[in-house]
Amino acid sequence: MEDKKYIKLITSTEIAEYSNIKGFMILKPYGYKIWENIKKIINKMLIKNKYKNVYFPLLIPKNLFDLENKYIKTFSKECAIVTHTKLIVNKKNKLIIDKRSKLNEFLIIRPTSETIIWNTFNKWIKSYRDFPILINQWCNIIRIEMRNKMLIRNSEFLWQEGHSAHINEKDALLEINKIKYLYKKLIKYYLSIPYISGYKTDKEKFAGAKFTYTFETITKNKGKFIQLATIHFLSQIFSKAFNVKYINKENIQEYPWGTSCGVSTRLIGALIMIHNDDHGLILPPKIAPIQVIIIPIIRKDTNKNKVFNFINFIKKNLKKKKIKVKCDNTSKTPGYKFYKYENMGVPIRITIGEYEINKNIIEITRRDTLKKRYLYIKKNLNKKILNILNNIQKNIYMIAEKNMKKKTYIIDNYNEFKNKISTNRGLILSHWDNNTKTEFKIQEETKATIRCIPKKNKFKEIGKCIYSGKKSKQRVVFGKSY
Amino acid sequence: MEDKKYIKLITSTEIAEYSNIKGFMILKPYGYKIWENIKKIINKMLIKNKYKNVYFPLLIPKNLFDLENKYIKTFSKECAIVTHTKLIVNKKNKLIIDKRSKLNEFLIIRPTSETIIWNTFNKWIKSYRDFPILINQWCNIIRIEMRNKMLIRNSEFLWQEGHSAHINEKDALLEINKIKYLYKKLIKYYLSIPYISGYKTDKEKFAGAKFTYTFETITKNKGKFIQLATIHFLSQIFSKAFNVKYINKENIQEYPWGTSCGVSTRLIGALIMIHNDDHGLILPPKIAPIQVIIIPIIRKDTNKNKVFNFINFIKKNLKKKKIKVKCDNTSKTPGYKFYKYENMGVPIRITIGEYEINKNIIEITRRDTLKKRYLYIKKNLNKKILNILNNIQKNIYMIAEKNMKKKTYIIDNYNEFKNKISTNRGLILSHWDNNTKTEFKIQEETKATIRCIPKKNKFKEIGKCIYSGKKSKQRVVFGKSY
Repeated sequence: MEDKKYIKLITSTEIAEYSNIKGFMILKPYGYKIWENIKKIINKMLIKNKYKNVYFPLLIPKNLFDLENKYIKTFSKECAIVTHTKLIVNKKNKLIIDKRSKLNEFLIIRPTSETIIWNTFNKWIKSYRDFPILINQWCNIIRIEMRNKMLIRNSEFLWQEGHSAHINEKDALLEINKIKYLYKKLIKYYLSIPYISGYKTDKEKFAGAKFTYTFETITKNKGKFIQLATIHFLSQIFSKAFNVKYINKENIQEYPWGTSCGVSTRLIGALIMIHNDDHGLILPPKIAPIQVIIIPIIRKDTNKNKVFNFINFIKKNLKKKKIKVKCDNTSKTPGYKFYKYENMGVPIRITIGEYEINKNIIEITRRDTLKKRYLYIKKNLNKKILNILNNIQKNIYMIAEKNMKKKTYIIDNYNEFKNKISTNRGLILSHWDNNTKTEFKIQEETKATIRCIPKKNKFKEIGKCIYSGKKSKQRVVFGKSY
Repeated sequence: MEDKKYIKLITSTEIAEYSNIKGFMILKPYGYKIWENIKKIINKMLIKNKYKNVYFPLLIPKNLFDLENKYIKTFSKECAIVTHTKLIVNKKNKLIIDKRSKLNEFLIIRPTSETIIWNTFNKWIKSYRDFPILINQWCNIIRIEMRNKMLIRNSEFLWQEGHSAHINEKDALLEINKIKYLYKKLIKYYLSIPYISGYKTDKEKFAGAKFTYTFETITKNKGKFIQLATIHFLSQIFSKAFNVKYINKENIQEYPWGTSCGVSTRLIGALIMIHNDDHGLILPPKIAPIQVIIIPIIRKDTNKNKVFNFINFIKKNLKKKKIKVKCDNTSKTPGYKFYKYENMGVPIRITIGEYEINKNIIEITRRDTLKKRYLYIKKNLNKKILNILNNIQKNIYMIAEKNMKKKTYIIDNYNEFKNKISTNRGLILSHWDNNTKTEFKIQEETKATIRCIPKKNKFKEIGKCIYSGKKSKQRVVFGKSY
């Protein structure tokens, strides 16, 4: 999707808009509602997995970063640094910084919260009985980005960050499997987004982690990668950096094992990139703020009461099944409304006029196929609508999956690789010699990075690195990312 | 309540704890859950009032504050100011600020969002058809406080900020009445907190508002005031400062009228201050994370299966009525558990052992009265539990209201006033000459401020200002605040 079209889609649907600070956006009601729906799903799954929500401070003192500064190096060029706390008004009646309010130690707006959380675990963790610790935080994050892309690369975003501490490595790895399952469900079944998942290379992983597991998808038109979710195995890196120890059953001090995981408002950007056509957005029913839009057809001679009574009857019925239904009874033309809600990606449109009422039918249009059909108003209307919503949910996944497959290339020749990356981008499966230098070289020459090392058997085959010709045990995923 | 007892209550119930930056706290799972419950109630009420949730940037460029700098003066001494965006590691392997990353224009972490929101309304508002605009934001706020008190005065807090824009003054004032009703319901019926409400004086109001309406309560022991909620009538102050205009029906440009309103995590502090006894916290059932705690009584010869089957039966039954029930089946003693959940303020405790099962009864203890009673397990157990929860909700309101009345003093003599303020504090109703100088003088001499000018008729009577002796039309509320 061209950038212009993407931005137009975001702004015309009133999902978000630019603020007057570069890289910072405003999430408007429709966009925020999508985020609330995504939040509700993840929150429910995390609570079921025994995570508890908490809130940690926005500002982190720099000495905590000093303790694990390998990790902060990742964010060191994109931090918002708080240095002063007072303003004064100068002679020109303008605000200036009161230099006397300079902080002894500067504070950093969280780029993620591992440091402050592990520093706190020091107080929470004493004995083997304290495990597992499973906490989650919904909050805002700042990472000042030079290259911005609304919802995909913002300097501020909203996210969920899960953090866990375990008694041993096995439990930490089991936790990672649980979160993998949870994110998979979210991405595939709720967002209808196909993905490829696997391990990040050492170069690409979160600097504070032993390994990072990632879920990635590619965009519909440009074939660029979007990172959807990540899970980090922190091993004992943070417990050692922050000197968090517990007394085990044998009365011996040990360092606990950690994980962290997160998804952000970037998922809204991914939804927009993946699910759209020439008519606008197509939202997965499971996260759509409006699932069914009813548009009344009122002509000069229409009995308005009759139409609206009928619509209210339908609405009431659908609401009983928790279907998110809305009727647009503004004075705009039906044509305007058709255009508007198609653009907004509302899964089902129902039009109702006197003609339909007299025939005891309603006209239904699916957003994914734009196909119209008539349904008789019988007892099982709700069930039929639910079925159509389910079908749309699955259908848009299949369309996106097909596109991803179409843009998946198995390439064994470096010239072909270079050519593909610069023209008809997508998910490139090639061999790599497992050497970071090679990875850098390829990136330098093509701007492609290794998006992940997938773990499924089908990727495992002996081959030769596309760059060095050295031996490789499996194909990895190359591509360009946002 | 003494400060030490207050802090101990917060930390021992695991509601919150200090972080390692002064003034910043960590909301732990129990505290965050209370906040989530409060959020759910307000959010539902706001949505019903047609507010839509949005998210605006955390950082506000200083030039927006220049436009309405009367308003920023309120916060100028408590701002977190972002000046740089990059860190580098020095020779000693410590992080230092990269001076080259200094921002051309510094950014301020929002102390509230009127400026950035009204700056955006400029884009949203064009015509009279665009009204009313009703938006709400759940977010974090920074106001660096010198005197901290956990949950009551933090440098960071979570809150809800509602913002509205209207076509005329009448609509804006009507909106304020709606929000008054909403906050009243929240405070009285959900939080069981008695309050006094009224207008802030010009000295005490929000600097960006024409007037501020406030809800205040006094603490149980110290008789100090806590501000619970505020509503601001922005009049056309922000529309003029940000040059927001709309075209009215007569095709003439006009400035819209604004309001804003908010409540914060301070409400949790108020709950703790108001609802407690020597055994700990007493949570209003409507916001308690656990409403009913079941404690199994297991002796050596107890048939455990029998007990837990019975408990599961009770739990299932209560959950059907959406009662938040939990069973503590850890290996701690019943005594330990009694102490723990009393301290946490759980409204109802049920103990179940073999004795109770054989008699087909359960033992119920109310947290507010600590009175025990036995209930037969019949079909209407749920109803009885719901009744008790309702009774507790009302009873703790009545207790708090009684305390507030007991601490309400009508005083007409300045010496008595001074004496009262310095010893047996509370809500002091006295006459005032409506002069800001007098207000400053009284504060200077006694540290008491005017908490509000209540509007009910009972406060209206001709009298003489307690300080100047000048004529006064009504009594106002004096007190010391946190």
